[in-house]
Amino acid sequence: MSAIALLPHSGKPAAMDLAAGLISHLEQRAIEVWVEQDAAEKLGRKDLVAGDQEFAACLAAIVLGGDGAFLKAARTVAPLGVPLLGVNLGHLGFLTAVEPAGLFGALERLLEGDYTIEERLMLKASIIRSGERIASFFGLNDAVVTRGVFPRVIQLDTFIDDAFVGTFLADGMIVSTPTGSTAYSLSAGGPILHPRLEALVVTPICPHTVGARTLVTRPDERVKIRMTNERTDAMLTVDGQIAEALRSGDEVEVTRAGKPARLVNLNGRSFYDLLHSRLLL
Amino acid sequence: MSAIALLPHSGKPAAMDLAAGLISHLEQRAIEVWVEQDAAEKLGRKDLVAGDQEFAACLAAIVLGGDGAFLKAARTVAPLGVPLLGVNLGHLGFLTAVEPAGLFGALERLLEGDYTIEERLMLKASIIRSGERIASFFGLNDAVVTRGVFPRVIQLDTFIDDAFVGTFLADGMIVSTPTGSTAYSLSAGGPILHPRLEALVVTPICPHTVGARTLVTRPDERVKIRMTNERTDAMLTVDGQIAEALRSGDEVEVTRAGKPARLVNLNGRSFYDLLHSRLLL
Amino acid sequence: MSAIALLPHSGKPAAMDLAAGLISHLEQRAIEVWVEQDAAEKLGRKDLVAGDQEFAACLAAIVLGGDGAFLKAARTVAPLGVPLLGVNLGHLGFLTAVEPAGLFGALERLLEGDYTIEERLMLKASIIRSGERIASFFGLNDAVVTRGVFPRVIQLDTFIDDAFVGTFLADGMIVSTPTGSTAYSLSAGGPILHPRLEALVVTPICPHTVGARTLVTRPDERVKIRMTNERTDAMLTVDGQIAEALRSGDEVEVTRAGKPARLVNLNGRSFYDLLHSRLLL
Amino acid sequence: MSAIALLPHSGKPAAMDLAAGLISHLEQRAIEVWVEQDAAEKLGRKDLVAGDQEFAACLAAIVLGGDGAFLKAARTVAPLGVPLLGVNLGHLGFLTAVEPAGLFGALERLLEGDYTIEERLMLKASIIRSGERIASFFGLNDAVVTRGVFPRVIQLDTFIDDAFVGTFLADGMIVSTPTGSTAYSLSAGGPILHPRLEALVVTPICPHTVGARTLVTRPDERVKIRMTNERTDAMLTVDGQIAEALRSGDEVEVTRAGKPARLVNLNGRSFYDLLHSRLLL
Repeated sequence: MSAIALLPHSGKPAAMDLAAGLISHLEQRAIEVWVEQDAAEKLGRKDLVAGDQEFAACLAAIVLGGDGAFLKAARTVAPLGVPLLGVNLGHLGFLTAVEPAGLFGALERLLEGDYTIEERLMLKASIIRSGERIASFFGLNDAVVTRGVFPRVIQLDTFIDDAFVGTFLADGMIVSTPTGSTAYSLSAGGPILHPRLEALVVTPICPHTVGARTLVTRPDERVKIRMTNERTDAMLTVDGQIAEALRSGDEVEVTRAGKPARLVNLNGRSFYDLLHSRLLL
Repeated sequence: MSAIALLPHSGKPAAMDLAAGLISHLEQRAIEVWVEQDAAEKLGRKDLVAGDQEFAACLAAIVLGGDGAFLKAARTVAPLGVPLLGVNLGHLGFLTAVEPAGLFGALERLLEGDYTIEERLMLKASIIRSGERIASFFGLNDAVVTRGVFPRVIQLDTFIDDAFVGTFLADGMIVSTPTGSTAYSLSAGGPILHPRLEALVVTPICPHTVGARTLVTRPDERVKIRMTNERTDAMLTVDGQIAEALRSGDEVEVTRAGKPARLVNLNGRSFYDLLHSRLLL
Repeated sequence: MSAIALLPHSGKPAAMDLAAGLISHLEQRAIEVWVEQDAAEKLGRKDLVAGDQEFAACLAAIVLGGDGAFLKAARTVAPLGVPLLGVNLGHLGFLTAVEPAGLFGALERLLEGDYTIEERLMLKASIIRSGERIASFFGLNDAVVTRGVFPRVIQLDTFIDDAFVGTFLADGMIVSTPTGSTAYSLSAGGPILHPRLEALVVTPICPHTVGARTLVTRPDERVKIRMTNERTDAMLTVDGQIAEALRSGDEVEVTRAGKPARLVNLNGRSFYDLLHSRLLL
Repeated sequence: MSAIALLPHSGKPAAMDLAAGLISHLEQRAIEVWVEQDAAEKLGRKDLVAGDQEFAACLAAIVLGGDGAFLKAARTVAPLGVPLLGVNLGHLGFLTAVEPAGLFGALERLLEGDYTIEERLMLKASIIRSGERIASFFGLNDAVVTRGVFPRVIQLDTFIDDAFVGTFLADGMIVSTPTGSTAYSLSAGGPILHPRLEALVVTPICPHTVGARTLVTRPDERVKIRMTNERTDAMLTVDGQIAEALRSGDEVEVTRAGKPARLVNLNGRSFYDLLHSRLLL
């Protein structure tokens, strides 16, 4: 018997309504449905709360929301190897695969196995303080070291696989996956990478350093950014959703994650078609 | 009888030592010296504390510190029309005119009137909330609207002299004077303006908006930036030194200030020579 | 009695047709019409050929064509002080003031004096070879020094008012007026200047030199670009229309022209409105 | 018995002198030496002229010159699978592995097999005219479509694997290998790629098109650029050394070449160390 993970944006009424309808539809077809704690409570279905074990056994995770909800879902279920299918309830939809009207058709194809899987490199960002790894986060888009609220530059010593690349005076530094190259990195002047290329993109934010440029590394290289100045309000943010305060001397290490995100691809639409429609080229 | 305003960086021991020596030197020559409250206390010379009236009557203000101290001094005494002479105790010295070793020679020329005055456009940035001007600040470098610490874009409707220029999704927006064009605006991709050109430079920070570019306006135009999204942690900062929290719906209006900063120029060194030495072209 | 200069794009049938109609209309109203040699021949009206003297006495020059025709016309009649009115028969129309449908209405207002004049800084570009000024050209948009057809960098020593700015290894260098800042300079990364600001914009094209940036000079500064390498196929082009081969050692000097272009402004439309509609901000 | 290909920059006396010495040294050690026609004539050693067969059997090709000579050599012997060792007689030396003083030491290590091989993706650029592939070239740096000498934009329809990416109005388009990402593409705003990443970089040159950005494709994608406007002086250049005139309607197709260039690596120096020393970060 199949099981489906359902990951609605719990703050969006449209997502929750769609989730309720979808649960009823799936249960009538005797397909198990699993949701997260937060959504389960809002839906009044605490019996559906899943842990990693239940999610890991799911055929796929259906995400109801925009790209933000998709990023959050990827951090939750991608490390478990669960394929993700995004239903676009937001604006842009670089990551979501179907519009709401296409949801039930997409579900049929999912159950019949009529789809392909597209693997996307995920990153793992860790904070190393006094030589100790104190926190680690997965991300599908980017790990960003930024100055705090006050617009004063921070000084970042940057290393790749222990080779010293340079000291950057900047507002911050973005380490992006290919998927994230159309997000924050693009606005900071970075290139657009094909999402199935395997690489990390290192883009300085507003560098004062003459000659600072975007670097694209091989996927197995380890990017390390050391905060060398005395500021205490710098932060690490992952996918624009997780935030951790950094201290002077902290190192942020970014590598590829052990497992990629697996995206359900139904229509074989080219990334460049999508890009063309989004960037109006 | 002449009077001199003395504006040392009160957090820099070297600046305070030099200030103490200079006060003694000037008093021996029967030249009045005026300082700010903070420095007076640290120097144990509360008798030298000046108000606007005393400062306004000074021949010049001697600033002891780096470009940061100079910016702070300009906001204090430029609106009073007092010429500024910067003595470089910092790193870069785009604004300071002499090195410490040249201070006494410079002082002689100042007292003898052997110098020229270089006028620099200053800006005035105001916060308009619910139609009311609630705060105004002068700046020699820039007025910057930025997102808060969390790296999520803000939405900024931008107007110049009431003409709508565009809605920018960005990390923020810089309105810079020509003097400030070699500071933050440069790191965000803006051009370098000759400091005696009269203009304002409007540079978006990491714009998501396709086609967003730096604009250079005429000096008498009024730039208005309206925060249209719901965030509450955006800020206005002036010269990287003054910070004020902004609310949704606030407008930041930037115009040229009524009075320029007046810089004491002793050597007639070309701006381009300075630029060449700083940017290593 | 009034006289009108008529400057149609002689390669565009629509422009020539409109010119013929306009001549007939003006002559019926006993208004003198003057045209250039080329157009006169195509129109079969050699009696209307004007020299500088006739053009200089005209109330205005009506340009029929796109921005290209307007640039050409500006080089011809702006030095004579004749106001220009552009009728848009091209695509973009940054310079043209009216659409063809509005031509006769605009003509009435022109004859009645119901318009304002907008002055635009023009530039003068000269080639100096072995110390001698061998050629000079006026331009409303830009003077561009470029490598020849083979994509290899040229080495350009750049001076402003005899101060050395730097040696740039680049594909070339653009010196633009504010009007030209929305043309080639923009595509090379330059800022957009308000067209009535007075300044010159110096933008390197694909610089290899780390730290090369766009400079905005004061209007009375003299930009000098010296070709120091051995290539012989570099060129000076003005407004993308005039081209002159450069030799090694040649200097290109760019200053503001003695006279501005005078544009007939009928609707008082803001430059920023125009920009907004063109750049889709 | 070992054989060595010797590829000196035949226009550089220092390279020819070093070549003559090296031939004598190798022949004394009974190591065969092979050279190209041009160099053989200048060295008075027509007996050493090699064809593809002799080159293909060589242990390695030693290139005497700068990066330009190395690029030329790579196009000649990389398709034959011959490893390249560059001796730096030029300025920058991004590609060359040893300085002249280290040549004989490097030779010993080469003969003893004490080195590693670093593979670098090469590209293949073809001109397709009226559906027919009329010319193909290999390149280690880049294939560039540019406007001719006159600085007017060209219109380029760009496709990747037959997906339409966009129509770019630009001075041209660069398709670069990772190795070439520090060359022309960098000056046009492109990112720096690790040279052993496998990808193609597509960078527009001075795009007028709002939103045009650098794209980084997967290595097996086929980039196709179609010249759609009427100009006849556009060109395809490869590695800045080969130039072919393009006609309206021509397509330039760029793919990875069947074989990579194989570089002899003696010191295991990190690319980022090299970058740091070159870009002064």
